[in-house]
Amino acid sequence: MKKIHRLGAALAVATAALTLSAPAAAQFAKTEDAIKYRQAAFALMGNHMGRLAAMAKGEKPFDAAAARSSAQLVATLAGLPWEAFPAGSGTGAAKVKGDPWANAADFKSLQEKAGAEIGKLAQSVDSLEGLRKQLGATGASCKACHDKYRGN
Amino acid sequence: MKKIHRLGAALAVATAALTLSAPAAAQFAKTEDAIKYRQAAFALMGNHMGRLAAMAKGEKPFDAAAARSSAQLVATLAGLPWEAFPAGSGTGAAKVKGDPWANAADFKSLQEKAGAEIGKLAQSVDSLEGLRKQLGATGASCKACHDKYRGN
Repeated sequence: MKKIHRLGAALAVATAALTLSAPAAAQFAKTEDAIKYRQAAFALMGNHMGRLAAMAKGEKPFDAAAARSSAQLVATLAGLPWEAFPAGSGTGAAKVKGDPWANAADFKSLQEKAGAEIGKLAQSVDSLEGLRKQLGATGASCKACHDKYRGN
Repeated sequence: MKKIHRLGAALAVATAALTLSAPAAAQFAKTEDAIKYRQAAFALMGNHMGRLAAMAKGEKPFDAAAARSSAQLVATLAGLPWEAFPAGSGTGAAKVKGDPWANAADFKSLQEKAGAEIGKLAQSVDSLEGLRKQLGATGASCKACHDKYRGN
């Protein structure tokens, strides 16, 4: 069993590593292009999470249509950044810490957890109460990854 | 008739100016936030237009699912940047020329034309031939605005 478990873990790491590097190599001519791409996706997500947070906190009036639009956009964008982490793209303006490439399975697991919460968010914004509840869970799932791998 | 035409033109300018500034003021705390937001949307659009262009030119194999995904993403993103042009956001790192604020009706008309072509693009990518045809028209509609208002 231990051997099988080890093999499974090794495969999971290998699969995650492939996910990180193979499509990136295919889609980005230069490392800088990948960094720019993922930062653009995160910037738009951050802005729309901020709009949702402003409604959740009562700083802006709750607007179900605007909330749905922002939450759906975040859900669409949440699939984008992960192919844009080619190996060696963690220096300079890259805003990475904690080496997601050496911890590929953990990085992938955190992506998937955040993706699942973001998916629920798009289903939860028809009421202010629903938004407040699921925005908290979503924010926590984003933060779990930021705390480990986001440089600044 | 001339008076009515003038009034219509004045209203069109006023409406376009409102579209440019009112939501921007609501959604962006600082001018820099708006600039970052619109540049992020343009960066992602540019990347995915590049992926479509690579297929259209035969540099990458045609992949209908990937093409659809990119075209739909561009269509979603194409609605985002326009609220992020608050008055006075054309200096520094803003990459703006030709004063879109003084030419608000023209700027809005170019947005709408590009939006219409981008909308058709998402409906045209099931075949390589359809992609090639509509990507050309779409790229031209983007370029029409870039030539006038994109700084670099």
